[in-house]
Order: sequence, then C-alpha cells, then structure tokens
Amino acid sequence: MAQIVECIPNFSEGRDPAVIEALAHTARRVPGVTLLDYSADVNHNRSVFTLIGDPLGIAEAAFQLCKTASETIDMTRQSGEHPRMGACDVIPFVPIKGITMDACVAISKSVARRIYDELGIPIFLYERSAIRPECENLANVRRGEFEGMPEKLQHPNWSPDFGTPHIHPTAGVTAVGARPPLVAFNINLNTDNLDIAKAIAKAIRGSSGGYQYCKAIGILLEDRNIAQVSMNLVNHEATPIYRVFEAVRFEAARWGVQIIGSELIGLAPAKALIDCAEYYLKLEHFDYNRQILENHLLE
Amino acid sequence: MAQIVECIPNFSEGRDPAVIEALAHTARRVPGVTLLDYSADVNHNRSVFTLIGDPLGIAEAAFQLCKTASETIDMTRQSGEHPRMGACDVIPFVPIKGITMDACVAISKSVARRIYDELGIPIFLYERSAIRPECENLANVRRGEFEGMPEKLQHPNWSPDFGTPHIHPTAGVTAVGARPPLVAFNINLNTDNLDIAKAIAKAIRGSSGGYQYCKAIGILLEDRNIAQVSMNLVNHEATPIYRVFEAVRFEAARWGVQIIGSELIGLAPAKALIDCAEYYLKLEHFDYNRQILENHLLE
Repeated sequence: MAQIVECIPNFSEGRDPAVIEALAHTARRVPGVTLLDYSADVNHNRSVFTLIGDPLGIAEAAFQLCKTASETIDMTRQSGEHPRMGACDVIPFVPIKGITMDACVAISKSVARRIYDELGIPIFLYERSAIRPECENLANVRRGEFEGMPEKLQHPNWSPDFGTPHIHPTAGVTAVGARPPLVAFNINLNTDNLDIAKAIAKAIRGSSGGYQYCKAIGILLEDRNIAQVSMNLVNHEATPIYRVFEAVRFEAARWGVQIIGSELIGLAPAKALIDCAEYYLKLEHFDYNRQILENHLLE
Repeated sequence: MAQIVECIPNFSEGRDPAVIEALAHTARRVPGVTLLDYSADVNHNRSVFTLIGDPLGIAEAAFQLCKTASETIDMTRQSGEHPRMGACDVIPFVPIKGITMDACVAISKSVARRIYDELGIPIFLYERSAIRPECENLANVRRGEFEGMPEKLQHPNWSPDFGTPHIHPTAGVTAVGARPPLVAFNINLNTDNLDIAKAIAKAIRGSSGGYQYCKAIGILLEDRNIAQVSMNLVNHEATPIYRVFEAVRFEAARWGVQIIGSELIGLAPAKALIDCAEYYLKLEHFDYNRQILENHLLE
C-alpha cells in the first residue's frame, strides 16, 4: 500500500502574489507530491499550503518550500494579525495512509535537520515531534514572535532543537513537527455581541477547562455583523465536531443565542464528518472502515 | 483516472456454504476485480456480493458469477422469504469513479447478451438499462417469481429483452441493469407495534406519496421486540438519509414514538453520510469534492 503524508506549511506572506506563486511553483515541481490547495489571507498576512505525497517527496517539498520562503520573505519588514516567528512559520506533517505517526515524526526530524544544515534557520520540534513538553504546544514556542525570538533563544529553556541560539536574520525561526489531522471549524451565532462568542469559546476550549483537543476564540465577522466561535480541533477522534457543536449550542442557549451556521476551513478527513452523521442518525453497529465504499477504493 | 464500477449481484442461495464459497471463489479469481463483501441470509435464502473493478473486469466477474450460480443453484428446489426469479436473481452495476451511468448501461447490456448467448438464461434489463418503462422497477419484473415466470414470459408485454420467452429450466430468469448507488438504511422505534412502523413506512415511501426515491416497509425485529422502518434509498442525492430520518422522526411523534437507533446495511458512499453532517452542522459553503481529504487521494 502506498504511503501518503500530508504537509500543511504556513508562510508569513499573504499579500504579495509573486511570493505566493513562487511558493506554489516550488510545490508543484517536486516529484511525488500534489499541491491540493493554497490560500492567502491579507489581514493575517499569511498563506497556508496543503500538499500530499509519499514520504520522500513530501520531505523534499517541505524543504524546498522553506528554502523559497527564506529567499522571498523578509521577516524584518513583515507585519500582520496572525502570530508568527519565521518566513516559513510552521511545517506540520500528518500521517494519512499506510504510515504511522512515528514515521512522520522521523520525517519531521530529517527535514528539520536539513533546514538548519542547508539554510541556517534554527528549528523547534513541536507537537508529536517535541522532545520536551514545553514545545508540544505551538503557541508556547511562538510566544514572543519574530521580534522577541533573539532574546527568547538565549534563555536556557528555549535553545532550538536544531541550530545555535541565533535566529536567521530575515527568515527567523521555524517550527517543524508531526501531528494528527486538524479540523478548522467555525460556528456562527445570531448575535453581534462579541463577548458572548468569547464566553462560549472560553467554555469549550481545553486550555480553560473545556474539551481537551479544542482550541477556540471568539471573533466578530464585520461584513456580516455576527459573532463567531472559531476553533481548531487538533484531535477530531477524541474531541469530535458534533460534540463541540452541541456544546456551543447549549452554551449559546444560556444567552438566548442560536447557531445559524458553521463552516469548515480547508480540508478535513471524511471520518471527521461521518462521525457526526453517525451521532445524529443514532447509527448502531456502524463500521467506518468496512461500510464506507471509498475506504475500499483507497486500498 | 482509473474507471471503477461496483457490481452487487444477488443469488438465490443463503443456506449452503459450499455454494456461497464457490461464488466467492469465482469472484476472487477474476483479474481487475476485488470482492469487498458478501453476506448470506438464511431466512431469505439469498446472498449478496459486493465487488468493484474496472469495466472489463467487472463485466467478466458478473458473467462468471452468473455462470457459477446457474451450475450450483437449482431454482426448482429453492424456497425462501425473499422474492426471486433466478439463480443469479439480479445484477446491478453502479458507476463509482471516472465512469458515466451511460457507460454502465452499456456494460450491463454486454453482460446481459453474453449471459443469454453462452448460458441460455433470458434477461430483463431494469432500472437505468430498461428499454421499456414497465421494466424500470425490479419489483414489477420479478412479480410472479420463478414459479410464475414460464407463464409471464408468454405475455407479449413480458417477452425478455435478451432470449426467447422460455425460462432456463433450473436458473430461471435474471435482471441486469445499471443504477445509482443504493443506501439500505433502517430506523428502529421504541415500540413493539408493527402497525406504527407500517404506517410510517407508508407515509415516507415514494410509491404511496412520500419521498420519491425512498422504498420502505415496516417490520418487527423479533429478537429485540421492536418495530423497524426498513428502507432502500435508491437515489441518496435526491432523497438524502437525513431527510427520511427527520420525516420518520416527526411521523413517529404522531404516535408518541421515538427513534432509538438506525442502521446502515452493507456499503454506502461517503457522501451519503457527509451530506447528513452538512445538514445537522448547518455547514455554509461546504464543497464536498474540494474539502474532503480522501477525494484528493482517490485521484
């Protein structure tokens, strides 16, 4: 069975089409890899690429993309709403088919080493690749952002996993790691009260006592004048979509507010949504691997 | 892109393991075809096989299975609860990937012709392959069953589409056709009153004024002492699972009865369940083809 790895590198450039196209061009010319999707956000000044490929191809693509980013993005001139610490800010690897998480950890470490060896960009290993607990959470690693990294790297706790404790002058620092698939899922509310969305986000996110694998913030969608609970579900098997959906529903009811819609950002595994159908339809004895036709087509 | 066709032949033997294994052996030795699943029902005295393959392979497998069935099943000695007219009772072809319904109709006709030419079994073309309206519905074609077929075939309206109007003495008559994927879906109720399940089935099935692509009957699950609405959704895009689920819910409420569970029989396309998640999660701007990871892996 073919081994398939997903890679979703994030770059600190969401405004200059020439840079974004240069990255897309780099991704497309690596054999054994398919660029599935890429999107740029002007406000965030950030772009997210989604690639799949075999282990060798995906490792090569990740390195080449980091190289192109380091040649085209100057972090000393970059600003945007999204927290960031490097031109190629973060490179996650996700096991998709025929490959273990451990194998993806190994891929992440080989790419991390090569990035430092050939490009001189210091690396933190994060999520499942982390070799110390404080680096598991990307938000911890990135705290201080690009501008704070020169000082942060001098602290004994924050010496990079690959490289000397000095940032690359224009490309900063990159986080590399393996992780399970992440589902980016937002829920829209029939209120323009941002405080309600923030209160709901606080109630459901793991860091403040909610669902362990749910990260959530409240934001206002200015064009629609509605509040939104914006989430990353970093382990959709342990914290499924329907569970946070129902939790948002009952937290919102406390304020007399209803859910008017939701949105899935980027790609999600079929199982993340089929688990929701299984819940709402009260399916008995359902066997995802056996009963979904496409699972046989992939074999 | 590889072309993939599903074939789900039904055989009038659900009791003799030697016959069922002979059929499985036949299916497994055809190149270009994978036997995904097969199950036999003793009460129905019927077995259902699920295969996928390329057009040439699936056509060969369908013919070879019909041949094995005609050599091992004697309809003059067969009885069971399920209506049937032939040893190989029905052979549906379903377009799965990279192939049109019209191409599956062409496959069905080539297999039908070969079955008559080489095995002497008369054929009715049904569903999308039907060349006259009265043959579109399999239940119409099969009415009279094996015992009634010699007389039925003499009627000018029921001359077979391939072959002379005489049944094969032991293998009877076979229906062959192309159709969309079918979802077999049952809903369990917290009542032992069969009449309620029958009333709900009548309310939701197309033939009595309900959803056009829903076939439904009420049955009693004797081992659990609960009533069930048992359905075939013959076009899950036009009549989605969640819609009949919600219809059963509100019809049952009329009787003070609730849904306690449901079950999916055999295989279903991922989209049939993801459409349900899209409904219950109120997803906005969801793009099934683009946003489900596995759809890219199949390309």
